[in-house]
Amino acid sequence: MRNLSIDAERLWSALMEMGRIGATPAGGSRRLALSREDGEARDLFVRWAKEAGCAVTVDRVGNIFARRAGADDSRPPVCIGSHLDTVPTGGKFDGVFGVIAGLEVLRTLDDADVRTRAPMEVIVWTNEEGARYSPVTLGSLAFVGAHSVDYALDRVDADGISVREALTEIGYDGPAEVGDREIGAYFEAHNEQGPLLEESGNTIGVVTGSHASRYFVISVQGMAAHVGPTPMAGRKDAMVGAARAVLEVNRVGNAYGPDGRSNAPHIEVWPNVRGVIPDAVRVSCDLRHREQAAIDEMEEDLRSALTRLGDELDMGFELEPYFAWGPMSFDPELAELLRAAADELGYGRQDLRIIAGHDAVPMTEVTRSGLILIPSRDGLSHNEAEYSAPEHVAAGANVLLRAALAEAGIVADRHSRRT
Amino acid sequence: MRNLSIDAERLWSALMEMGRIGATPAGGSRRLALSREDGEARDLFVRWAKEAGCAVTVDRVGNIFARRAGADDSRPPVCIGSHLDTVPTGGKFDGVFGVIAGLEVLRTLDDADVRTRAPMEVIVWTNEEGARYSPVTLGSLAFVGAHSVDYALDRVDADGISVREALTEIGYDGPAEVGDREIGAYFEAHNEQGPLLEESGNTIGVVTGSHASRYFVISVQGMAAHVGPTPMAGRKDAMVGAARAVLEVNRVGNAYGPDGRSNAPHIEVWPNVRGVIPDAVRVSCDLRHREQAAIDEMEEDLRSALTRLGDELDMGFELEPYFAWGPMSFDPELAELLRAAADELGYGRQDLRIIAGHDAVPMTEVTRSGLILIPSRDGLSHNEAEYSAPEHVAAGANVLLRAALAEAGIVADRHSRRT
Repeated sequence: MRNLSIDAERLWSALMEMGRIGATPAGGSRRLALSREDGEARDLFVRWAKEAGCAVTVDRVGNIFARRAGADDSRPPVCIGSHLDTVPTGGKFDGVFGVIAGLEVLRTLDDADVRTRAPMEVIVWTNEEGARYSPVTLGSLAFVGAHSVDYALDRVDADGISVREALTEIGYDGPAEVGDREIGAYFEAHNEQGPLLEESGNTIGVVTGSHASRYFVISVQGMAAHVGPTPMAGRKDAMVGAARAVLEVNRVGNAYGPDGRSNAPHIEVWPNVRGVIPDAVRVSCDLRHREQAAIDEMEEDLRSALTRLGDELDMGFELEPYFAWGPMSFDPELAELLRAAADELGYGRQDLRIIAGHDAVPMTEVTRSGLILIPSRDGLSHNEAEYSAPEHVAAGANVLLRAALAEAGIVADRHSRRT
Repeated sequence: MRNLSIDAERLWSALMEMGRIGATPAGGSRRLALSREDGEARDLFVRWAKEAGCAVTVDRVGNIFARRAGADDSRPPVCIGSHLDTVPTGGKFDGVFGVIAGLEVLRTLDDADVRTRAPMEVIVWTNEEGARYSPVTLGSLAFVGAHSVDYALDRVDADGISVREALTEIGYDGPAEVGDREIGAYFEAHNEQGPLLEESGNTIGVVTGSHASRYFVISVQGMAAHVGPTPMAGRKDAMVGAARAVLEVNRVGNAYGPDGRSNAPHIEVWPNVRGVIPDAVRVSCDLRHREQAAIDEMEEDLRSALTRLGDELDMGFELEPYFAWGPMSFDPELAELLRAAADELGYGRQDLRIIAGHDAVPMTEVTRSGLILIPSRDGLSHNEAEYSAPEHVAAGANVLLRAALAEAGIVADRHSRRT
């Protein structure tokens, strides 16, 4: 199997075909989780998986498992997974690359008539992005039992449509119980979404762990009043309070650089009309850092800043945590497998830690989990201009192929079976 | 007629009955322009007006004219008007007080069998608040020809529903041509929405003019990227840019105090989801000041500040004007009539200038226009807790009655007609 290699052209072509579902004029993709477009993308994946001879299972939160039988089908499967949903103006690579790379691995094994000892599965997780439904990695978190199935099904989007309703609408309210399957090992490949690989010139990033991420909602309570006659001095303008809070969040991320990150990308304003000083504003934000001690300090720093703001502006400021993970480490054995695969293939590689969330993180709760990254042009992601070069896409899939095969074991290939 | 007086109880009761349409749990009203609730309020007004013997006309932008014939019906009518729409969490007085006071004036004339020389009309203007459709005072602006009827009908709300569609939906897409009627004089009564009358202890504010108001949209152009791995230093975070812009708007209002005002109560963020650094943000804002020179300086100040922000943050900032009015003056004759009425009735009064917009402002373009204010408790408005005392409500209506009668002329009352 030393020379087994994925079909780079077929891989790229499948990636581009998937990218046309929800294609945006600026060259990106819009496939919000469980939208009609996400449903179409799932349908295409399922068709391809079935054409490749896979048995397809969908669980109650919409996670899809496409299984290629192993010689010993009682063994827990070696899995490759990622997601097909995107942010509202997303790119063609984030998530979909990992799924299509997994599919390409199975297609390559079929072409070469390779029989693995353990079965192999390609997994599509529900709502990884957290853009339509919060929190991020909803499907894999439910799979590992980090939250209940009902909690996941009851999440609602900005229009009040629940995950339950959206799953039914696109026909992915599957029958399988969530988390009711053993996983032998989990691999994921993703575009980097940051500049490090491009800067170093390496092709493969082997991820050793994840930064800590803490998600909050900041609530600002002001007082509604007429925007005109109300004297400036007497106002409790929740928009002004929220603007100050956004800048505090930003300050904290900068203060703990270069490993600190912060953002406040989502805002809800009441009543958000011209003519009325806003009564209340909610700002979603998160803080990230590689060190536990530093993330603790960042949270405390932000909390104190909001308390001071409340005193200064005489408005209510609350910092409500609603989700957190990390810092965590990936499985050292799988990381070593991935490094070895990259070395055998002659790809430049380096170790990295991720600052973004991926389904590979929750998966560490139930199995050994390994993650690789490939370069993103200009470090750009969550942007329609997101791009990874065809040779990097192919390299990532080849590393997956080699590592997954090493993990699953080979009992027969074209040569041995046909003789 | 010296002793003719409105029925304070009937007035208050009608005001409270109207306030129950779209009543909110916190004691306010929610009747967004041309919503189902606004339609119900209009229906109630029309019923009351017809019960009072009025002929009702609706024009193509939904303005309603309830006409009480005069002895000389060829004279242009003396009008009393205001609006029934509210901000999303509005009070029971803003706008509706002026309409109900006008109706009470007609009811009082009926009770006393008073025949006026000129006809009298009560007018309900469409979308005064500017909360659902922008700009403010949409109906009266269309009436005076400040913008075209098509422009008004084509305005859309946040859900993309046009004024044209909303009018049809509630049955107020009237047949009358807009602006196709002469107005002899226009009176309006409103709650103050600020603290001055409460502070001085006066009952009636006679409005001599309006501050200048300039409405803008600030567009901030950033660059979408992943919130996590993207280094803090390389970001173009449009939310951070917008927060800085909101604080600049607020600074400008404070810098030109005590007559300066500013606000930025409305924000739109793309894509406004967790996980993506916002690409673009639009902030609606306005600046107000009583002096022309000062409003010019405020605009220039804000424009320079945004240019500096653009340079500092390497993001695009644009300040796009979209609506402006004032400073302007109301008709001195009508103001004198209103002062005289307050004096005869023994109400404490003072001159004021308004900082809020009212339909009485556009009306100065086509007729003599007069405006009075009554006190608001704690100066509060555009808030469900908005409140004006029954005696102030009655006082305002009595001043309207007296001034409107002086303007319309009396040819017969109960005494003269019945003998």
